[in-house]
Amino acid sequence: MRPVVVRDVRRAESAAVDALAALGVSTVHEAMGREGLMKPYMRPIWPGARVAGTAVTVLAQPGDNWMLHVAVEQCRAGDLLVVAVTADNSDGMFGELLATSLHARGVRGLVIDSGVRDVRDLHEMGFPAWSRAISAKGTVKSTLGSVNVPVVCAGALVHPGDAVVADDDGVVVVPAARATEVAQLAQKRAAGEIEKRKRLAAGELGLDLYGMRPALAAAGLVYVDRLEDPKP
Amino acid sequence: MRPVVVRDVRRAESAAVDALAALGVSTVHEAMGREGLMKPYMRPIWPGARVAGTAVTVLAQPGDNWMLHVAVEQCRAGDLLVVAVTADNSDGMFGELLATSLHARGVRGLVIDSGVRDVRDLHEMGFPAWSRAISAKGTVKSTLGSVNVPVVCAGALVHPGDAVVADDDGVVVVPAARATEVAQLAQKRAAGEIEKRKRLAAGELGLDLYGMRPALAAAGLVYVDRLEDPKP
Amino acid sequence: MRPVVVRDVRRAESAAVDALAALGVSTVHEAMGREGLMKPYMRPIWPGARVAGTAVTVLAQPGDNWMLHVAVEQCRAGDLLVVAVTADNSDGMFGELLATSLHARGVRGLVIDSGVRDVRDLHEMGFPAWSRAISAKGTVKSTLGSVNVPVVCAGALVHPGDAVVADDDGVVVVPAARATEVAQLAQKRAAGEIEKRKRLAAGELGLDLYGMRPALAAAGLVYVDRLEDPKP
Amino acid sequence: MRPVVVRDVRRAESAAVDALAALGVSTVHEAMGREGLMKPYMRPIWPGARVAGTAVTVLAQPGDNWMLHVAVEQCRAGDLLVVAVTADNSDGMFGELLATSLHARGVRGLVIDSGVRDVRDLHEMGFPAWSRAISAKGTVKSTLGSVNVPVVCAGALVHPGDAVVADDDGVVVVPAARATEVAQLAQKRAAGEIEKRKRLAAGELGLDLYGMRPALAAAGLVYVDRLEDPKP
Amino acid sequence: MRPVVVRDVRRAESAAVDALAALGVSTVHEAMGREGLMKPYMRPIWPGARVAGTAVTVLAQPGDNWMLHVAVEQCRAGDLLVVAVTADNSDGMFGELLATSLHARGVRGLVIDSGVRDVRDLHEMGFPAWSRAISAKGTVKSTLGSVNVPVVCAGALVHPGDAVVADDDGVVVVPAARATEVAQLAQKRAAGEIEKRKRLAAGELGLDLYGMRPALAAAGLVYVDRLEDPKP
Amino acid sequence: MRPVVVRDVRRAESAAVDALAALGVSTVHEAMGREGLMKPYMRPIWPGARVAGTAVTVLAQPGDNWMLHVAVEQCRAGDLLVVAVTADNSDGMFGELLATSLHARGVRGLVIDSGVRDVRDLHEMGFPAWSRAISAKGTVKSTLGSVNVPVVCAGALVHPGDAVVADDDGVVVVPAARATEVAQLAQKRAAGEIEKRKRLAAGELGLDLYGMRPALAAAGLVYVDRLEDPKP
Repeated sequence: MRPVVVRDVRRAESAAVDALAALGVSTVHEAMGREGLMKPYMRPIWPGARVAGTAVTVLAQPGDNWMLHVAVEQCRAGDLLVVAVTADNSDGMFGELLATSLHARGVRGLVIDSGVRDVRDLHEMGFPAWSRAISAKGTVKSTLGSVNVPVVCAGALVHPGDAVVADDDGVVVVPAARATEVAQLAQKRAAGEIEKRKRLAAGELGLDLYGMRPALAAAGLVYVDRLEDPKP
Repeated sequence: MRPVVVRDVRRAESAAVDALAALGVSTVHEAMGREGLMKPYMRPIWPGARVAGTAVTVLAQPGDNWMLHVAVEQCRAGDLLVVAVTADNSDGMFGELLATSLHARGVRGLVIDSGVRDVRDLHEMGFPAWSRAISAKGTVKSTLGSVNVPVVCAGALVHPGDAVVADDDGVVVVPAARATEVAQLAQKRAAGEIEKRKRLAAGELGLDLYGMRPALAAAGLVYVDRLEDPKP
Repeated sequence: MRPVVVRDVRRAESAAVDALAALGVSTVHEAMGREGLMKPYMRPIWPGARVAGTAVTVLAQPGDNWMLHVAVEQCRAGDLLVVAVTADNSDGMFGELLATSLHARGVRGLVIDSGVRDVRDLHEMGFPAWSRAISAKGTVKSTLGSVNVPVVCAGALVHPGDAVVADDDGVVVVPAARATEVAQLAQKRAAGEIEKRKRLAAGELGLDLYGMRPALAAAGLVYVDRLEDPKP
Repeated sequence: MRPVVVRDVRRAESAAVDALAALGVSTVHEAMGREGLMKPYMRPIWPGARVAGTAVTVLAQPGDNWMLHVAVEQCRAGDLLVVAVTADNSDGMFGELLATSLHARGVRGLVIDSGVRDVRDLHEMGFPAWSRAISAKGTVKSTLGSVNVPVVCAGALVHPGDAVVADDDGVVVVPAARATEVAQLAQKRAAGEIEKRKRLAAGELGLDLYGMRPALAAAGLVYVDRLEDPKP
Repeated sequence: MRPVVVRDVRRAESAAVDALAALGVSTVHEAMGREGLMKPYMRPIWPGARVAGTAVTVLAQPGDNWMLHVAVEQCRAGDLLVVAVTADNSDGMFGELLATSLHARGVRGLVIDSGVRDVRDLHEMGFPAWSRAISAKGTVKSTLGSVNVPVVCAGALVHPGDAVVADDDGVVVVPAARATEVAQLAQKRAAGEIEKRKRLAAGELGLDLYGMRPALAAAGLVYVDRLEDPKP
Repeated sequence: MRPVVVRDVRRAESAAVDALAALGVSTVHEAMGREGLMKPYMRPIWPGARVAGTAVTVLAQPGDNWMLHVAVEQCRAGDLLVVAVTADNSDGMFGELLATSLHARGVRGLVIDSGVRDVRDLHEMGFPAWSRAISAKGTVKSTLGSVNVPVVCAGALVHPGDAVVADDDGVVVVPAARATEVAQLAQKRAAGEIEKRKRLAAGELGLDLYGMRPALAAAGLVYVDRLEDPKP
């Protein structure tokens, strides 16, 4: 692939991005039709953070973090750095100095399909990161990759400027053009759950609340008092 | 398999279940003869919880949480919901609304050989869960499974009504009929360790406390000052 | 292999070991030339600990913790117990009683390429451990191994007496003979980063700070405003 | 667990077992209602074998093959040896000498949730085996387990005497009491597929053959000529 | 996501596709700039096949093969069926009847990020398949997905009509618009290797053939007769 | 680490190496005391090969095969190339051109803790390789490593010149200084098995042949006709 840095990125609407952050990954993922989720091996390096930002994307070589330094310059406030690697890798491509630099530019966090190090420092700085691994393994700065090209990160397609939401449940990608629509759908979904939560908390069954009984019966579900045969 | 919901469950004695909770997974597992442990990939979604409950079991299809809604109705106070899946799966089959519903019924927690989502909410609610994965991946409600049949969950056989103990060390299953006996054995074991702990803390060696030296010598263990050859 | 316990161990200089602990795994790993790192599957059983100690090594059989009891006697204050296993295993080979015993001798922690249990107790005791797994699975005491022989633990070669540093980023091994030199190199590296951190925090780019632009250009990196083709 | 060898086993009907072997794993698994399948990590050590036999079960310790020697005596012609292990393990618990011994007794193969070695010899002997791993790792003979107790092997519950079918698609367990019924169901299923295969081979679509179009339409499937938006 | 079947697909030039098949995955992957490779867990279900075809893509739910039946109708001679799943899954979504149907339409093979069954039959039919797993696990036909939308399959982005090349080395995706160009580049690369192969076979060193010595020396490579210290 | 190529290697005695090849991995591993085995994820890229050679070792960076080209020059007839990588990697670091070059020098095969490509060509050439993965992923030539230093490859310590034996059971390392002794021990072991094999084939039980019954009884093994309780 021709190594390239793309400078102009059409970013998702910032109001929509902030709304998505407040709603969280699971609600957003449902609202947009169960799309865009990264693989569940992507985990936060410390618990409790919930952020959304516009993606600056990196395609890097395994064990080589040169392009992350290049990408910093393309980041602005409200962005989230999203790093894909050309082959499975868990090396510590990102640490406290890069985080300091991103933090200075107002970047909200990191999503990387590889490893992170200096996790204690990152936690103290309050800089959130989602990664495949935590590893101290040092990396080289030898081979070019690209910045702000479409990448497949942890199984999800990410275009530069997409809204990326991350919390303790994982990471979801919302295409920039759909961010406002998805934020609205997610808010509607969240609002609809308030009443449900209240009724469930009061002891009403989901079977009744969601009207599931007819479909279960139609599908053939049978209730018995005891299994005759111990190995059904 | 014929989809079925079994209503009558012979539950383990509740006093025994509570005693098991106080003792914890490792002690219970040892006391019952090193049986019944689920695979170590089953991890708590937040640290520090220690519970025991009587199993209501679910056999679900991968990516389909319909039967969890069915199972809620079969749960009562003191139960623990145990979900097995017919094939390896990590989707987010369980979240905050199901937890709200279980919580309203006095259910003590969830053990699921698949994924959980809304982990921040579950932590805030104090609802504990042990799972193979954390994932926001939404699931369908299309295919029947069964409730309260024997299941294999994370490598362990679970019958409805069995006592299930879970803490930071993992999850162990105690057959309902053995719960009282195992609780007594575990209490005896725990009591026996108090004196040992005191002696070890005072610097006595396990080699002496457990009388291991003769068996080690008989097995051929040799003490030397130095290895002659650096590659033994 | 002939089962053997080696009594005399040439330990790394204790001042150097303490200096290494203060610097942390990632800095030490870089300072010694990116060597000696254990695989990233080695994770702390509770977050936040950072220790260094001199290695007492164990080579154990899978599912058999007999030699850990033997090893305790060879430990002294400032040591770290490092356990390798002859085949992949995740059983709970180490728990609270062994930790009590090690703690009484001034041992600083455990590194084990297998499983640990009683993690809540260990956390409360403040006894740190890095392991491949957490598991309540009980082990036997049947087959000999060795103590204080060179071992391969989680992919790293460890000689008895080596300095082993462990924190949230992982575990790194420094040969005893190099401990003082590596501590000095690491201190120099850490000192050098203070100024860099300040400049990065002030918004200076790593591209400029590290002078990367000429090498990137020479390697052929191209900047464009937009990708003409959406699939680069 | 109390170590025990159970001598009397109620074996599945041998005619049914032979019929199951002829039908193969996938057909049998479907015919019995998609139950009883072992995890897909169980693979044949050489391709092309298809066998069925009545289970003699072993519960062994990781890295310890003592009970396999005990189990041989309990085997008779037409049996299949099924080995479960109390914790995940991949050691070479079974090799050419054990195979020679089983072969002499008319045993049809091995299913083991651990490792096998001497695979070249086993292939030359025509002795089939399904395992989690191939490994030369030697094992000890130190700790008891049990023979002919119910075991969970690779996620499936196996009772002694159950019919176990294995081929290139994996391993499936048929409860002894259901073997004849399942063999009949599987034969009916296989017979029903002959006509379908002929029609599909002639170019008829499954959509028409199975009458799927109305259900797809009812579920909301839409056919379009082109996607307007390249990111659906 | 809105379930949709797209009928019109702009397929890669068939002459280019056939040329790519002859060149094989590794050569094509290098020629196009080391892009487009699926993860190495994608393995052929039987060795020796080498094919290329134009992609008909499917996005299916885990454990649900309904959309594969829908996709068959969209396939024509020279195509390759490429199946992505919305979450990690290894069930046996594809078997001999679907293969019969595809074969009747001139489809050249299957690439599926899930499981395949009836592997013996598929081998006998000469129908090649690349998959993440082999599994007899039966699937349902309950939930819609899509056909001929862009999908991420085993980490690679695939658009309908792309040229997909598969052999014993894995699977690579060539965008339809680049198929002819990549085939030419790959042919040039293959031609260039004939002379190199001859010279290497004659004993010439790659160090000399590729002129690597100056760059190695410049990078600081040192030749010594012996290591003074046994632990470098 | 200082990148270095060591030219003088003390190779294991060639007669011993050839004897080891004839005996195979499992026998050699047992004869030397169950040491030196690589992890079982190391698999042959094609079945049936059995070789032994003297190790030329490489320590390479992930995704960078520069040092393999350097290592070729250090190889001579009877060697086996052993490649370790500084972090987990599965890229296709080795293919047909490197194999051609090694073959021309009389090298007997490759053992690599990473990926191999061109497997069809390597099979046709009869060049055997054991690897962690098969992958077409191209690699760079940017960063130095070392040749003929001690390495940890797939969990085993390998010194240059050690005898390395590889077959369908895996890969085992015999220290150069022990090669002759181990070959003799392995031959004795193999000879001893001939009589055992004959007696087992004649139906004698291992229980009797190895005299296991007294130890089993002493350990507490109990024989019963039936389990009273179905859940032992």
